[in-house]
Amino acid sequence: MTDPKKAAGGLSACPVPIADYPEVLLAHGGGGRLMHQLIEKMFVSNFDNSFLQQRHDSTRLELGDCRLAFTTDSFVVRPLFFPGGNIGSLAIHGTVNDLAMSGARPLFLSAGFILEEGLPMETLWKIVSSMAAAAQEAGVQIVTGDTKVVDRGKGDGVYINTSGIGLIDASVNIGPAQVRDGDAVIVSGDLGRHGIAIMNARESLGLETSLESDSACVSQLTLRLLEEGIDVHCFRDLTRGGLASSLIEIAETSGRHIEIDEERVPVLDQVRGACEILGLDPFYIANEGRFVTFLPESEAARAVEILRESPLGADATVIGRVADSRDNLVTVRSVIGVRRILDMISGEQLPRIC
Amino acid sequence: MTDPKKAAGGLSACPVPIADYPEVLLAHGGGGRLMHQLIEKMFVSNFDNSFLQQRHDSTRLELGDCRLAFTTDSFVVRPLFFPGGNIGSLAIHGTVNDLAMSGARPLFLSAGFILEEGLPMETLWKIVSSMAAAAQEAGVQIVTGDTKVVDRGKGDGVYINTSGIGLIDASVNIGPAQVRDGDAVIVSGDLGRHGIAIMNARESLGLETSLESDSACVSQLTLRLLEEGIDVHCFRDLTRGGLASSLIEIAETSGRHIEIDEERVPVLDQVRGACEILGLDPFYIANEGRFVTFLPESEAARAVEILRESPLGADATVIGRVADSRDNLVTVRSVIGVRRILDMISGEQLPRIC
Repeated sequence: MTDPKKAAGGLSACPVPIADYPEVLLAHGGGGRLMHQLIEKMFVSNFDNSFLQQRHDSTRLELGDCRLAFTTDSFVVRPLFFPGGNIGSLAIHGTVNDLAMSGARPLFLSAGFILEEGLPMETLWKIVSSMAAAAQEAGVQIVTGDTKVVDRGKGDGVYINTSGIGLIDASVNIGPAQVRDGDAVIVSGDLGRHGIAIMNARESLGLETSLESDSACVSQLTLRLLEEGIDVHCFRDLTRGGLASSLIEIAETSGRHIEIDEERVPVLDQVRGACEILGLDPFYIANEGRFVTFLPESEAARAVEILRESPLGADATVIGRVADSRDNLVTVRSVIGVRRILDMISGEQLPRIC
Repeated sequence: MTDPKKAAGGLSACPVPIADYPEVLLAHGGGGRLMHQLIEKMFVSNFDNSFLQQRHDSTRLELGDCRLAFTTDSFVVRPLFFPGGNIGSLAIHGTVNDLAMSGARPLFLSAGFILEEGLPMETLWKIVSSMAAAAQEAGVQIVTGDTKVVDRGKGDGVYINTSGIGLIDASVNIGPAQVRDGDAVIVSGDLGRHGIAIMNARESLGLETSLESDSACVSQLTLRLLEEGIDVHCFRDLTRGGLASSLIEIAETSGRHIEIDEERVPVLDQVRGACEILGLDPFYIANEGRFVTFLPESEAARAVEILRESPLGADATVIGRVADSRDNLVTVRSVIGVRRILDMISGEQLPRIC
């Protein structure tokens, strides 16, 4: 039996500097540098094991002859309903996509609900119905669940955790460590719609826009690439922290240099306009139905062609390449030819985006 | 892509009667009849699949040659620290125990944190350290995680979801459907300590008691029984809703009649005294380190002996048997020989117990 007094007595010093961060900040959940520090110092160091060291969207487990992907995500998006989706569909898409990023076929999800006392039953019904529809479309089954209720004022309507299991084919070996010099960097579609749609819904910015979130399940795209025999080195979805954070993480984990050509990065005029008004950078805005993939340059044209066969990948584009230096940096060449280094932001542009 | 408008447009009527329950109540999370109705009508009907029909603590999945158990649990216990544990150790014990109830060897956990802005960093550190210690003791690894932060006033410090994967040996076939006439019913230890310890800590009842929660990982006990070749038919842990709810669920799922001998059910004097003062019934109080097992009467004495070899099972006792009628009932014979039928309570005795 665990003796918590003993655990407390033998407690080593808190690895997050208390003087600097005595309390958890909203920015600790924002997908930027602060969140990465919290995860590394608080969790990875404490739960130390080789699986967490994979630093991937989902963890690969080998059990007998089975290669599984396993992942978890809690959803606290505000508002619960937004143009293009709601917390229920998002909770399916997010976890299915994390599994897809390991090259897995998503199969089984769990669903854990934390409900606030007073949540209208009809609201819950709409959310659960969206989950069922999204799961069916993604070809996954929700096989286990849990329901907790917290007192009025101790929640925000509903929080949902989904965890997922997928099956990885024996031939698949995908992850940031597989990225190679010369790889093409391909994005699966236009950037920034989820973040701007949420922000517009939440803050009543009054942007005159019909913009909808890009929230979608992308496993159909990733599995198509693999089925077509494309030698994919890495997938990464572009959620909290956007394209910039994903690329920086991959550059750091793979120890390589990534060059992006800004002109090629697809961003809708509506998103670009909203970003200019709000002083935001579309490279850092969250998406929920977009990913980057790294693969040999020789296969890039065919990969883009395959992605574009699906409406979800209609705007897939090569946006850069992996250079042969070892400086862990991401650089962006602007329209006028100036190169800048992409930094990970410390906090978040938009809290509670997912 | 899921079209939530379509989903909303084609929405069938909410299966929970809105007139009776327009809003979610605390009692919907209490482990009683209301929670079961919510789960059946809202989730099982909507996410319809054969796995949810198993109605077990964890779901059994077959993937190639692998037989997996998969489960999820969110923890919202209040207060975060209580005599005998905290939300971190509890989050490990709860999910490990759910896996153990399928006869699985618990192996991998995920950890999803929902943190409230303003949570002291030291508090988080203590909780995470307890999780690490409890995971190590249970022989499981935390292999994937997620962190979200919600605004001040929209949480209650920290909520934790853990989901888990275990491996089920090919020879094991355990579940409520395996319960047979004549089976002995064995409880692994004394009842009600977790609920009373939490209630005393929360409500400052001022009960003069050194009572600690029974929160513990029980997989060492369940695996010992299986390793020793005991023909276990069913395990069920005694969490929300206590012994009564677990027995009623098993009677209903197996379609049998369970007879309990009240005199034999182990309850500490301190727990019994607190229950008398508070008007509570120890049969309905939550435990977090106790389970019942159903197995052939001929193996009962040996099973009890095996359980008692571990301090965690020191009070293991045969408390009843499965009778050969088909009325789905649980009856209790009192000390003076009167028989009463156990009913599932509608709400909860103690909200937010786990």
